[in-house]
Amino acid sequence: MLRVTTSIRVRYQETDKMGIAYHGNYFTWLEVARIHLLDSIGCPYKELEENGFFLPVIRCECEYKSPARFDDIIDVTVHLPILNQARVNLEYSLTKGETLIANAKTSHAFVDFSGRVIKPPGQFVEKAINGI
Amino acid sequence: MLRVTTSIRVRYQETDKMGIAYHGNYFTWLEVARIHLLDSIGCPYKELEENGFFLPVIRCECEYKSPARFDDIIDVTVHLPILNQARVNLEYSLTKGETLIANAKTSHAFVDFSGRVIKPPGQFVEKAINGI
Amino acid sequence: MLRVTTSIRVRYQETDKMGIAYHGNYFTWLEVARIHLLDSIGCPYKELEENGFFLPVIRCECEYKSPARFDDIIDVTVHLPILNQARVNLEYSLTKGETLIANAKTSHAFVDFSGRVIKPPGQFVEKAINGI
Amino acid sequence: MLRVTTSIRVRYQETDKMGIAYHGNYFTWLEVARIHLLDSIGCPYKELEENGFFLPVIRCECEYKSPARFDDIIDVTVHLPILNQARVNLEYSLTKGETLIANAKTSHAFVDFSGRVIKPPGQFVEKAINGI
Repeated sequence: MLRVTTSIRVRYQETDKMGIAYHGNYFTWLEVARIHLLDSIGCPYKELEENGFFLPVIRCECEYKSPARFDDIIDVTVHLPILNQARVNLEYSLTKGETLIANAKTSHAFVDFSGRVIKPPGQFVEKAINGI
Repeated sequence: MLRVTTSIRVRYQETDKMGIAYHGNYFTWLEVARIHLLDSIGCPYKELEENGFFLPVIRCECEYKSPARFDDIIDVTVHLPILNQARVNLEYSLTKGETLIANAKTSHAFVDFSGRVIKPPGQFVEKAINGI
Repeated sequence: MLRVTTSIRVRYQETDKMGIAYHGNYFTWLEVARIHLLDSIGCPYKELEENGFFLPVIRCECEYKSPARFDDIIDVTVHLPILNQARVNLEYSLTKGETLIANAKTSHAFVDFSGRVIKPPGQFVEKAINGI
Repeated sequence: MLRVTTSIRVRYQETDKMGIAYHGNYFTWLEVARIHLLDSIGCPYKELEENGFFLPVIRCECEYKSPARFDDIIDVTVHLPILNQARVNLEYSLTKGETLIANAKTSHAFVDFSGRVIKPPGQFVEKAINGI
């Protein structure tokens, strides 16, 4: 099972007038973690796109447990519990030290440039099954 | 039952290199619709905050059905199916003409400035029960 | 001389923890005004791109005079003082009622898909010279 | 003279449909560099705000020389050429390897919570004069 943790530091731009990080910006942090997950298995997303594989988000959710604030270091752990040929379902937990900030999920499909669903690349499948 | 439709026009800034609107930006559009919903019942969110009522997002989800592209006019319909004292659960559908773009949900709690959960303001409850 | 005014309403997402709109977001509002300018002369930017004309920002500046806040209605006036074949230089003023919020400028070049500088489209030149 | 270099990695969210980073997002990268500059002299911006010092942007400009693309590592060098009691004027260069991506400037004033201009904190002045 793949599992990678990435740290992000909350930017001022990501906060809102409530003094906390705007909820929609968490999805950018999930992206950062996802990019690192793909790096870690030798499938950088940039190369995937260059090879004609796109991985759009087809569903996402986030449950906010405790606010993230400016300058906080948030650890975003992403894991791929089960490999599913049709969908890539990722789960995330966001923590600040011992405090749970949020839980989240994203689902993706591999598509080609025209948006047609295609098989995942072999390297991705192999690494996702064997773990890192 | 409250139901309000708002049109947004997709900004270039909201697109990404896949040529479509970035998934995280949909949550900003939901915010725009929510603001209009509150306007429509005489509870502008700005005034709510001035009166000490904050309405943070505590959960959100979105299912993407068809891409939104630059300059598209997207109709965002938000409705409040049932009034629940503890949580405000909103549902959204996003359409472009006849095409369903996305379905989404957000959950909110009324909190005071310190983040403590409080009762919704009376005006909100009355309007939410009676509809518009 | 072309001159168009567009109103934007400040989104919560555009604010930061200082309680005001984040400075970088003003450039998105300038974009919205620019899109309306192009609409007004029958050259929607979407169509320009479809016809192979891209208009990236090659320089921008903004001077902030008074803060823009959540829910403010900001009038963004854009004008094209002089038509210059090589560069499109736009000037903007942002006001809230009688209050000046900001002055800004952007410079653009027409380029093709590969990024090579090209002549502006004829429709644009004609309208830009004759005004609306 | 203070000078600090920070690396950022371009996020997918920061790109637009032209396939490059959206011009307005560069100002967020400048913020990241500025935060590191303040860290480097023992004046973390978070602490400045906690002590009643706010440093809003009152002017900014950016000149784009070469596009930044998804996944690029951009080195953002910020320096403070001269200490000026009334304004903090910062200059930035953004490079990708040997390639100049952009030059930029931001001007700031120290203000209190109510927005009134105040003297810079002593620690900032001392470090800014003596360099690191």
